Amino acid sequence: MRRVKQMELRAGMTVDQLVGELGGAGVQGAGDLARACDILERMVREEATVFLGISGPMVPSGLRNIITWFIKEGHASAVVTSGANVVHDMMEAFGGGHYVGDFHADDEALRREEIGRIGNVFTRISDFQVFEDRVQELLSGIDEELRRDMSVRELLDIIGSGLDDENSFLRAAHKRGVPVFSPGLTDSMLGLQLFFFSEQNDIVLNAVKDMKELSDMVFEAEKTGAVFLGGGVPKHYILGANLLREGIDYGIQVTLDREEGGSLSGAKLEEAVSWSKAQSRANIATVIGDATVIFPIMAASLKERLA
Amino acid sequence: MRRVKQMELRAGMTVDQLVGELGGAGVQGAGDLARACDILERMVREEATVFLGISGPMVPSGLRNIITWFIKEGHASAVVTSGANVVHDMMEAFGGGHYVGDFHADDEALRREEIGRIGNVFTRISDFQVFEDRVQELLSGIDEELRRDMSVRELLDIIGSGLDDENSFLRAAHKRGVPVFSPGLTDSMLGLQLFFFSEQNDIVLNAVKDMKELSDMVFEAEKTGAVFLGGGVPKHYILGANLLREGIDYGIQVTLDREEGGSLSGAKLEEAVSWSKAQSRANIATVIGDATVIFPIMAASLKERLA
Amino acid sequence: MRRVKQMELRAGMTVDQLVGELGGAGVQGAGDLARACDILERMVREEATVFLGISGPMVPSGLRNIITWFIKEGHASAVVTSGANVVHDMMEAFGGGHYVGDFHADDEALRREEIGRIGNVFTRISDFQVFEDRVQELLSGIDEELRRDMSVRELLDIIGSGLDDENSFLRAAHKRGVPVFSPGLTDSMLGLQLFFFSEQNDIVLNAVKDMKELSDMVFEAEKTGAVFLGGGVPKHYILGANLLREGIDYGIQVTLDREEGGSLSGAKLEEAVSWSKAQSRANIATVIGDATVIFPIMAASLKERLA
Amino acid sequence: MRRVKQMELRAGMTVDQLVGELGGAGVQGAGDLARACDILERMVREEATVFLGISGPMVPSGLRNIITWFIKEGHASAVVTSGANVVHDMMEAFGGGHYVGDFHADDEALRREEIGRIGNVFTRISDFQVFEDRVQELLSGIDEELRRDMSVRELLDIIGSGLDDENSFLRAAHKRGVPVFSPGLTDSMLGLQLFFFSEQNDIVLNAVKDMKELSDMVFEAEKTGAVFLGGGVPKHYILGANLLREGIDYGIQVTLDREEGGSLSGAKLEEAVSWSKAQSRANIATVIGDATVIFPIMAASLKERLA
Repeated sequence: MRRVKQMELRAGMTVDQLVGELGGAGVQGAGDLARACDILERMVREEATVFLGISGPMVPSGLRNIITWFIKEGHASAVVTSGANVVHDMMEAFGGGHYVGDFHADDEALRREEIGRIGNVFTRISDFQVFEDRVQELLSGIDEELRRDMSVRELLDIIGSGLDDENSFLRAAHKRGVPVFSPGLTDSMLGLQLFFFSEQNDIVLNAVKDMKELSDMVFEAEKTGAVFLGGGVPKHYILGANLLREGIDYGIQVTLDREEGGSLSGAKLEEAVSWSKAQSRANIATVIGDATVIFPIMAASLKERLA
Repeated sequence: MRRVKQMELRAGMTVDQLVGELGGAGVQGAGDLARACDILERMVREEATVFLGISGPMVPSGLRNIITWFIKEGHASAVVTSGANVVHDMMEAFGGGHYVGDFHADDEALRREEIGRIGNVFTRISDFQVFEDRVQELLSGIDEELRRDMSVRELLDIIGSGLDDENSFLRAAHKRGVPVFSPGLTDSMLGLQLFFFSEQNDIVLNAVKDMKELSDMVFEAEKTGAVFLGGGVPKHYILGANLLREGIDYGIQVTLDREEGGSLSGAKLEEAVSWSKAQSRANIATVIGDATVIFPIMAASLKERLA
Repeated sequence: MRRVKQMELRAGMTVDQLVGELGGAGVQGAGDLARACDILERMVREEATVFLGISGPMVPSGLRNIITWFIKEGHASAVVTSGANVVHDMMEAFGGGHYVGDFHADDEALRREEIGRIGNVFTRISDFQVFEDRVQELLSGIDEELRRDMSVRELLDIIGSGLDDENSFLRAAHKRGVPVFSPGLTDSMLGLQLFFFSEQNDIVLNAVKDMKELSDMVFEAEKTGAVFLGGGVPKHYILGANLLREGIDYGIQVTLDREEGGSLSGAKLEEAVSWSKAQSRANIATVIGDATVIFPIMAASLKERLA
Repeated sequence: MRRVKQMELRAGMTVDQLVGELGGAGVQGAGDLARACDILERMVREEATVFLGISGPMVPSGLRNIITWFIKEGHASAVVTSGANVVHDMMEAFGGGHYVGDFHADDEALRREEIGRIGNVFTRISDFQVFEDRVQELLSGIDEELRRDMSVRELLDIIGSGLDDENSFLRAAHKRGVPVFSPGLTDSMLGLQLFFFSEQNDIVLNAVKDMKELSDMVFEAEKTGAVFLGGGVPKHYILGANLLREGIDYGIQVTLDREEGGSLSGAKLEEAVSWSKAQSRANIATVIGDATVIFPIMAASLKERLA
């Protein structure tokens, strides 16, 4: 048995030095986070095909530039995201913003003030009006041929190419040739805009078409890794694709959900081993915590180790 | 201020009598559950257009027949589900099963025994092999014209028509003409089968096509209600559509997730009011608990009240 | 492997019939709750020495009469409670009340209105003033000799004898000779009153004195069981005492806390087996849920089975 | 409304620089943690009387030296702890250890190997045997007069004086004259040893006696602050005492528990405002996360700011 090494702190210690102390202790959240940092470093250094899965309001809550950096550096080979993060990335690119709000705000008052609440993040409904106009423009600009059988990845690549914002993760992905998938995209405000557009125009968003590209990535990969911020559809999609190669080699998940209810978001990533969606428990870590705290630590630790 | 009435129990009391005692107390989970039962009764009695959103492994964990009953009785006007519940409904219709397992099982051992774990539910990989064969057959039987521009709803309706199992919720929905949506369907084993099929055949699953039908339902409704088991894409999809009419009139959500991480699954349903996705706090309840306990109570209470 | 039996509901079914359906499914919260009901029935039928551990605001949130019934029926051989439940039991006996409030209330406004908030339960500060007067009276009435070396159990027995309220659990315990322990009592409003009293009077609350009586109960028991509403000090105290006989025979815990943070409240009761505080996993169940929903179900099920 | 500033990371950034980025975003866990760091700095710089409340296995899981440092530096004016942290501090001082274990370990196997499990921390039962011997020695050495009416604080001070370990928080508290309270102490292995000792010797552990000293601290304080790792009895005790001065000026809490169940551990610290146990919401932060990650960040940030 390895002994829990009591942590020691130093004034001005770096983030990765802190992670080292957490890992020395090695138990509870501290141990899981330190292991996750090690696994992340490994998947990046070994140039695994890394899938970044994004659920929950990561863009609205301050992680946008970290995600964009992760893509720009080539750490992500593909991104699988909820529709909402696509919408909020676009909204910021169109000049919109996210604001520090309050979980306990009066939602009826917010409604009157035209503020939409995402947890304790506030957004202005007026920013969504700008979003609508710009999306309709963007959709009109797509080649009609393509529009009749478009994968979600193709749509998001075109959108990324049209965003004039260095901090946009969609743009960074477009520039670097990193595919962005979003299998449940139509659940979002962008989905609603696609519907409005379809009232006047032919448009087919063919989710099956995405799977060819995704599966090719999986088949061609020597090693694969996955980084999950939250769970949901992105997690299921990435793990499902990796079934084609008997599982990811490396995986980390950050979640506040719990496993007892049976949801995939709360399921420990280790569960994927039983399904042959992950290779073994050895290179897997599930960190219970708020992604707005945990992912910055992991990213800063990675940056420091690679520097 | 209304006083907390201390609960009184009686031997042999019915489920709804228990709910009455919980509501008399009126606080914490007891209060939320009792309010949810009242709201459910109201939306059903007023014949609102009710959307049933299903995330998490509801079919594998024993709620399949309750969901099917809910549809057969006409309580659900539409179902929006994760892909996994579709897969598991089909799997049971094809003779497969779900088994009582263990959260702490050794996932590497399960893998060797070809058992896939969903929390503490076990499934046999061999059942998925039957599933594969049957799905390919079903897909082959679809009219080629339709296959070239098929909504998810159309696909699931055809599947439902082909299942020979009275307990299947897909079949019940087909028979009663209740649309089943599943915007993130390709994240599931069925998604993988669609991909395999597409290697040899033309098939287009057009998620935008679904939105016309969904929005028509919303526009035509006098009142709408929503019942969310879990959150995720189904919740976002249903609430997003109801934006078109300034929000649901009635809504209840059952979840074990928490709001602080900002995820939609953990967000209190009250948040939807700020977005005009729900009309007011008055007819909304969020119940924190395991859906395998909470939904049977709500359903049994409803059954008793309507009898 | 045992198959998950899909649940079937009937209008007017009893609570225990519902529990039967939950148990047929046997997984997630449904399975845990059904197993807990079986274990509770077993410990009661076998006349085990049952310790009822109460943490969290069970009296304020509507479970007072159920706890009192449990004691009156002889199902509890001893109670171990947080100080707060003692205070709130007394407060109700003195004519005070608990009120249906709101988690999101403005705490600064409540302060001005002299309302103390416990989650979404409101209490009037004026009721605590009555409490103060009555407690000082009660303390003054205690024999001086006893007051100089009093166990917590002795204090609570005297208090119980002085409460004129059939619904008080302290009174019920006094009448039936069921000891009530509260090792952390001084953390409560009663603790503060003891301090005020001690400013003018000799009073010694000797927690070590309680342990003799507690350990005698454990040594003399043929079988022991434990029912934990929440965790905390009551759980640690009961399990620690049962170390003297190599563990409880039967145990159930209801909690919303999670295990990853390492707290005893969130720890699965199974952990106690490693410490010889519980005999085996076989007769143990941990139910994740809100005690205001879960305990009434367990109690109603027990009542029905014994009737 | 203040905009969410997207976080920026730098290789080799310090912990407090990271906290700065979290605070720039200002929402979800990131915002709460950054605010907590600010409040901690403020209470320390203003030399408030700071109460450190410790629940959950902080010593076993690697935070012992951080707690000891906090006391040595004079940041804590008093400590209120669960009994278990006292026991594990003593155990380490006696040469015992804590080991990196597994949440999913087989508890029946651990029992046979004489390993006690605390979440995923393992301890050797043999270390507790050393503990027993040493405690009996320590108790025998206490002046008989004192033993007949001893506060918990007095007992823990004597124990601290007898530990020969620079890393012990009990010893550090003794040396610096910082009182250590533990109102629920008898729930622990030390409680059991007190009972064994009492079989042959006179010993009175008088918890009321502690309250005089505690209340004097509160009455004399110009400003008070509280740092809660977990909730439980320490939180209730500290907040209850601060009622005597209409509430703490500064407060931070780290917890993984949730508020809906009504437990004090899960209650947002803001609730204390309604009770006049905290002065206002302005200087209060509740951080949802694992204390083994969150407290080291807060402590390293503080160290850096004060350096």
